[in-house]
Amino acid sequence: MTDHAYDVLTIGNAIVDIIARCEDDFLVENDIIKGAMNLIDMDRAEALYSAMGPAIETSGGSAGNTAAGLASLGGTAAYIGKVADDHLGKVFRHDIEAIGVTYNTSALEKGETTARSMIFVTPDGERSMNTYLGACVKLSADDIEPGLVQDSAITYFEGYLWDPDNAKDAIREAARIAHASDRKVAMTLSDSFCVDRYRDEFLELITSGTVDIVFANDAELKSLYQTSDLATAINALKEVCPLAAVTKGDEGSVVITREGTQEVDAHPIDKLVDTTGAGDLYAAGFLFGLTHGENLANCARLGGLAAAEVIQHIGPRPQVSLKSLAQQNGFQV
Amino acid sequence: MTDHAYDVLTIGNAIVDIIARCEDDFLVENDIIKGAMNLIDMDRAEALYSAMGPAIETSGGSAGNTAAGLASLGGTAAYIGKVADDHLGKVFRHDIEAIGVTYNTSALEKGETTARSMIFVTPDGERSMNTYLGACVKLSADDIEPGLVQDSAITYFEGYLWDPDNAKDAIREAARIAHASDRKVAMTLSDSFCVDRYRDEFLELITSGTVDIVFANDAELKSLYQTSDLATAINALKEVCPLAAVTKGDEGSVVITREGTQEVDAHPIDKLVDTTGAGDLYAAGFLFGLTHGENLANCARLGGLAAAEVIQHIGPRPQVSLKSLAQQNGFQV
Repeated sequence: MTDHAYDVLTIGNAIVDIIARCEDDFLVENDIIKGAMNLIDMDRAEALYSAMGPAIETSGGSAGNTAAGLASLGGTAAYIGKVADDHLGKVFRHDIEAIGVTYNTSALEKGETTARSMIFVTPDGERSMNTYLGACVKLSADDIEPGLVQDSAITYFEGYLWDPDNAKDAIREAARIAHASDRKVAMTLSDSFCVDRYRDEFLELITSGTVDIVFANDAELKSLYQTSDLATAINALKEVCPLAAVTKGDEGSVVITREGTQEVDAHPIDKLVDTTGAGDLYAAGFLFGLTHGENLANCARLGGLAAAEVIQHIGPRPQVSLKSLAQQNGFQV
Repeated sequence: MTDHAYDVLTIGNAIVDIIARCEDDFLVENDIIKGAMNLIDMDRAEALYSAMGPAIETSGGSAGNTAAGLASLGGTAAYIGKVADDHLGKVFRHDIEAIGVTYNTSALEKGETTARSMIFVTPDGERSMNTYLGACVKLSADDIEPGLVQDSAITYFEGYLWDPDNAKDAIREAARIAHASDRKVAMTLSDSFCVDRYRDEFLELITSGTVDIVFANDAELKSLYQTSDLATAINALKEVCPLAAVTKGDEGSVVITREGTQEVDAHPIDKLVDTTGAGDLYAAGFLFGLTHGENLANCARLGGLAAAEVIQHIGPRPQVSLKSLAQQNGFQV
């Protein structure tokens, strides 16, 4: 790759997370699909908030978390996503800038509020998200800064962006600019239900070469190929995608190239607290490695290291310097 | 004590905490007194927020945390404190009600915003607070519901309430009502610098019998009696106060009565993360014990147990059920 100002530009739904613990019964009683991202409207958001226990608020959004992780590792990252000009929007902007990410997207001045996701964490550490998209529905191709895409070695986006109406146009435009500048494009499949909503389009993004690098967890990849057998899904992806990384929770991850697959163990943890952000931080570590000359196994290890930090506390962004953590674990970062 | 609807009514500054980690150098560079509650104005609040790293927001306020801890232990608690009718005010109200605390204080409709405290947590786990009091300055005797005081076995308040102009009148009124109903009044000395600002008034509250139960940490008590010797301060307090509990960090706490003193070990922890809320939760556990027939040593143990939970994660309120935790530790709660 040629010189670049940013290792990675990430594009996603700009969301503030409202996180509380709950018992599994609560999810059943409130019709929340466990482990999924449930889209909700404002009435539902207010009803769920009333039922929710004491919470903490913290900036989130899948691609925002990935950008934060990249910055925490010492990488250069930029972010595109839409907030409103309100309290939560200011919180989101503060947090992503404070960790060192370039964030220039203008705030929506009227209409929708900043997106929020009520995240319920069950005793097993699993998170179940309930997202009101708010201002995110206004993200459009106008928000893509061509120079930012041209200056980024990799442009990474969320599958979640297929939920708002206009964001997919923004992504296709960003991918066009990226490839015209000989840059790479990466995506995460985001959520198995999201894959189910947009399966054909996601497959087309991959087979058409609009996307060069795919991130997914095992459930998402199985959903993409509508199979219960992970090996089958991996083989299918291997045929059409130059590079993919598939996470398998505490079983680590598998890196997929046309040449073959490579299994990498998960990073050990003391205690699983909250899986929110696990996939996002895996992508951060992997992409950091990829843009810093690491081999693919080390990319996967850096992903596992970053994910291990974030699942040992409440909240989807690192609470310690991932750069220091990587150094303590023998990486020359 | 006669029948009561609430074990404890707590009264304090209603604050949302904005918490970030920082290095010690940051405190020096930004003139923040380490370990203290620094009062700031809005300009300073905005400047510090700009300098602050990525943060999480969570309801706080010393007495609010104590009420939350009481509720988490299975006790009955009510709270009085002033928020504004804004986003942070709604967050504060949601969180304290969601944990089961009765909270009826009307929100301030115009003028000041809800109070916020920017809390910087250094690598040693110590927290340094920077508080913009906002709507808290409007708390007045009008906000004291006489019935709530009459129905509460103990009315507990923060020394911090001497900072806003009118709250001390509210406290004196609440104490008058409490004692007229044969109830007890408790206070926390809050902060050694706060003690320094209001030493004479705090001493008068104790010696006059306006306050029956005093909570303090070692630094606050030494500040109250302007001595560097804790034993001297304890002896002085012992002469004028029927019951006090003094916390000493990882050295546990000492319970003081006219009859003598009793040392109780700290509850063991795995890792100190953030001391925010330690004293508040100690008071919660102690007061829960006191209103549930425990002996004083067990009151101190319950205090230590609740404090141990809160210092092992970011944020000043319990993240697990303290009732379950107490049961796991052999308490019949």
